[in-house]
Amino acid sequence: MEQYPTNKLNKVRKSDRAAYDKDTVHAILDDALVAHVGFVDHDWPMVIPMIYARDGDTLYLHGAKAARIAKALGKGVPVCITVTHLDGLVLARSAFHSSVNYRSVVVHGMAHQVCDADEKTKALTLITDHIAPGRWDETRVMNDKELNSTGVIAVPIERAAAKCRTGGPADDDEDYALPIWAGVIPVRQVLGTPEDDGRLVAGVDIPQSIEQAKARHS
Amino acid sequence: MEQYPTNKLNKVRKSDRAAYDKDTVHAILDDALVAHVGFVDHDWPMVIPMIYARDGDTLYLHGAKAARIAKALGKGVPVCITVTHLDGLVLARSAFHSSVNYRSVVVHGMAHQVCDADEKTKALTLITDHIAPGRWDETRVMNDKELNSTGVIAVPIERAAAKCRTGGPADDDEDYALPIWAGVIPVRQVLGTPEDDGRLVAGVDIPQSIEQAKARHS
Repeated sequence: MEQYPTNKLNKVRKSDRAAYDKDTVHAILDDALVAHVGFVDHDWPMVIPMIYARDGDTLYLHGAKAARIAKALGKGVPVCITVTHLDGLVLARSAFHSSVNYRSVVVHGMAHQVCDADEKTKALTLITDHIAPGRWDETRVMNDKELNSTGVIAVPIERAAAKCRTGGPADDDEDYALPIWAGVIPVRQVLGTPEDDGRLVAGVDIPQSIEQAKARHS
Repeated sequence: MEQYPTNKLNKVRKSDRAAYDKDTVHAILDDALVAHVGFVDHDWPMVIPMIYARDGDTLYLHGAKAARIAKALGKGVPVCITVTHLDGLVLARSAFHSSVNYRSVVVHGMAHQVCDADEKTKALTLITDHIAPGRWDETRVMNDKELNSTGVIAVPIERAAAKCRTGGPADDDEDYALPIWAGVIPVRQVLGTPEDDGRLVAGVDIPQSIEQAKARHS
């Protein structure tokens, strides 16, 4: 399996929970809707939620060109992109051994602005389709004014680490005799019933993209 | 309404989506299960998912004392703690006006290690109860060894900004004539059916804390 490189910045301490192979990293990235993007702004760490998409070993972000984050990231700065799925609450007999089940990925790379119109359009297509697969082709074609006012940022994945916890609690041997409930409460992100905006042209049905999105998060 | 201070680091550009009052900020913080914690490590931004709790104007984090993040944050460094609820996918008739509905909070503060045993215990109680209200009192009492091996980090909220988007898409006037579905797909985080670990003492029922947790995320 092809691996992402590690160094002291992304090596996970508990190695049994870590993975660096591309299959694991990509699956976690592709399955989430929101990433938390970290960068340094005037010596302070800044973490902003953003939608995104992956194309091979590159992550794409977007935002209004006027937005601070597009300006900051467009300069070619180090960023950290973290994606987390919370999968369960792990209740042990002791608070100490209580935990959560999760799948997360931490990506590091240098951000740069995408200027090429074709790459920008490809990135925006991927971001739109990441939210609802196939949505780009259902929408009205993007015009030049819209394309020009949108900032697209590319982050080639330089290092990446996945970290996962699965399974039930692991209590101390003597605690199993205690009359305390222990186990896992599963957590899921689900999509509800689509609510149209009340201004649909007659005869317009719920599109394929929503069915696809619902199938991914059900 | 009492407000958190703003400066150029946390002032939101689109002011109609921003709030700085404590009621709004606290409600968003209290309603989430995982925060994304940003700090600077060897000049790189680092973003790590963590569970947490709030006590007034202070956020508490915890981790094994041996963990890099506990060591890094314990030194008294600037951190950014971001919490995001994804509430909906907003599908407009154009990709450009497509968006997501969300509630997020970005907090800045200087982290410091909590050494006082009473404050540590209070913080761990709050973190445990944040995951499942009342869970601390249901679990076996924490012993000194456990308390000593757990690092607790306090982050007094120095600045905070909430940002929210609600409602449907806002398309360009001429696009409403297009035969394209537009609206919102609600997104929710839900808790599933508790799964015990198969080692319960006879007669142990699902505790109150799980019912409380489920009521908060249903």
